[in-house]
Amino acid sequence: MAGTIFQKILDGEIPCHKVYEDDRVLAFLDLYPLSRGHTLVIPKEPAATLDQLSDDSAAAIGRVLPRLCRAVIKATGTGNVNILQNNGAAAHQAVFHVHFHIIPKEDNGAGLGLDWRAKTLDNGGELAAAIAACLE
Amino acid sequence: MAGTIFQKILDGEIPCHKVYEDDRVLAFLDLYPLSRGHTLVIPKEPAATLDQLSDDSAAAIGRVLPRLCRAVIKATGTGNVNILQNNGAAAHQAVFHVHFHIIPKEDNGAGLGLDWRAKTLDNGGELAAAIAACLE
Repeated sequence: MAGTIFQKILDGEIPCHKVYEDDRVLAFLDLYPLSRGHTLVIPKEPAATLDQLSDDSAAAIGRVLPRLCRAVIKATGTGNVNILQNNGAAAHQAVFHVHFHIIPKEDNGAGLGLDWRAKTLDNGGELAAAIAACLE
Repeated sequence: MAGTIFQKILDGEIPCHKVYEDDRVLAFLDLYPLSRGHTLVIPKEPAATLDQLSDDSAAAIGRVLPRLCRAVIKATGTGNVNILQNNGAAAHQAVFHVHFHIIPKEDNGAGLGLDWRAKTLDNGGELAAAIAACLE
């Protein structure tokens, strides 16, 4: 964790364009935005992926997301927004410190592009029970 | 809000394949999954988009996301996962009741497809200050 660019930002070794900070959370602009206002929200707690993050840090991020969304919407004038959080290289995670993207979807199409290939759920009852049984 | 399919699920008018429930949150399988284990996490509070959701409901969802991720990972054996939350029709929102997708990214490529067209940030300091100034 010590080596990630986000840890270096948290440690003050690298600057960022800060949007918000509290005891558990830092938000700043993505240097490689998909659209204007593309903001990253990270926990101060070092965790590579969301499944490894503490409940309290995850709650702190969740708590501030609506407020940050409203600020991004107000500042950019873009009413459509995607929130994305990737875990694992195959899921497009590039920096292994948990981060939530707030990505405005501009009227010109700039923003997050989604390729949505939905199927139909099979054996839903069985699968839901299997996931529920894995809850700690 | 009363008319959304998620409100009907919350009201018990339509069944769901429930994975998790607490005072503020319900999680269930998406009927049109992108991959096996595709789960939806919704607040019981009626809110069309995340910017309209209360801090407490958003925190409650954030708090349970790591735990739900771990259960989905364990039950499906898929270690890579995308979390996605869409706001507005242009941002691919189809049901206007806040929902977070937990979408396993399978080794065969099934899951969330992303089209990532990053730019370089211009005038970051000015933009960050503008967003921060819009925070309530």
